[in-house]
Amino acid sequence: MQKELGVVLLSGGMDSCVTAAVANKKCSLAFLHINYGQRTLKRELKAFNDIADFYKVRKRLVCDLKYFQKIGGSSLVDDRMEIPRAKSKDSEIPNTYVPFRNGHLLAVAVSWAEVIGAKKIFIGAVEEDSAGYPDCRKEFYRLFNKVIEVGTKPQTKIEIVTPLIGMCKSEIVKLGIEFKVPFELTWSCYKNNEKACGSCDSCMRRLRAFKEAGVEDPVEYA
Amino acid sequence: MQKELGVVLLSGGMDSCVTAAVANKKCSLAFLHINYGQRTLKRELKAFNDIADFYKVRKRLVCDLKYFQKIGGSSLVDDRMEIPRAKSKDSEIPNTYVPFRNGHLLAVAVSWAEVIGAKKIFIGAVEEDSAGYPDCRKEFYRLFNKVIEVGTKPQTKIEIVTPLIGMCKSEIVKLGIEFKVPFELTWSCYKNNEKACGSCDSCMRRLRAFKEAGVEDPVEYA
Repeated sequence: MQKELGVVLLSGGMDSCVTAAVANKKCSLAFLHINYGQRTLKRELKAFNDIADFYKVRKRLVCDLKYFQKIGGSSLVDDRMEIPRAKSKDSEIPNTYVPFRNGHLLAVAVSWAEVIGAKKIFIGAVEEDSAGYPDCRKEFYRLFNKVIEVGTKPQTKIEIVTPLIGMCKSEIVKLGIEFKVPFELTWSCYKNNEKACGSCDSCMRRLRAFKEAGVEDPVEYA
Repeated sequence: MQKELGVVLLSGGMDSCVTAAVANKKCSLAFLHINYGQRTLKRELKAFNDIADFYKVRKRLVCDLKYFQKIGGSSLVDDRMEIPRAKSKDSEIPNTYVPFRNGHLLAVAVSWAEVIGAKKIFIGAVEEDSAGYPDCRKEFYRLFNKVIEVGTKPQTKIEIVTPLIGMCKSEIVKLGIEFKVPFELTWSCYKNNEKACGSCDSCMRRLRAFKEAGVEDPVEYA
């Protein structure tokens, strides 16, 4: 029996790559990458294609949501704002927050899934991050699934799956090791395109995760 | 006291223009237009700017969601598909349906509203159309409001408002007349850019609405 088709939102970072490995056990894969004007756009796109090659995924879609730069409001897409070093207080929303970003990613994934007949959408959201990024909450995805149900054709059945939502970052690293995830192909840094900076919020979280998991991060740092 | 700011999703059609007139009574306005690769893109943009001039709206944002053409699946954005004449059966979803389109429009509106501090998002969705377009249902907007509540910053309060949702098209025309809506500036045709075709689904619905309301449509037809 043919496996059902699943869309994986693959940024190219470690979480999305582990998510792809989980999806790969259950579904035939289609990979979706979103450029929203982030500074490390080209490096992320390379990671996306490297990971897609690794998993032998032919169905690939790269969408440009460059309008995010017009909307502004985040250092990730606005060159005039500085990418902060690791954030000072856990309760603060960092300026790398892109307003409602995951709402856009899911909308694109739903439209593509409906056109190609995919039944699942995998996204590597982690609730631990939700203090900073409200659109990473479990509740957000539960409600979005209801929106999909009423907002698509009656015969369409698409479900968002968030396999990592309850995990901490070190558990994600361990799961990735178990699933032989090619961490060396992933890219997490918000700031640099060649060697990861090691000091932005995203690098810090990644480094801490590998350290806690007792595993060496195969990516090079500046 | 200053009025609160409201984003109006303004396609340039009659429904969105009447919606703008309703919003104008309650809010200070910001107009948002989305190009998603529709064939009548330039004509719609002209209608958008004409209506924005009419209501003296300075805050304007035009976003390109051209990736819809990559996703495909609709005659509105895919030149290889033919725009149908008025649809044969009411129960069928026409091929002008763009999968989950309103989900994308709302995501853009939410991000922009969060950045500029708008409290309301007005969209001219009409439930009557929901047989063909599932993302026009009242329930869709009720659930999307919940998604916004959990998916944005805690201090953010944004609500989608759908003033026309329960109306039939002729009631919308009558409301527009009452509010002195500049119908002559609006554009509804899916197919043509100069004179409206008068035969596509959207033209047919518009013509029927004006006829039922006993009002002459000021737009020229081919």
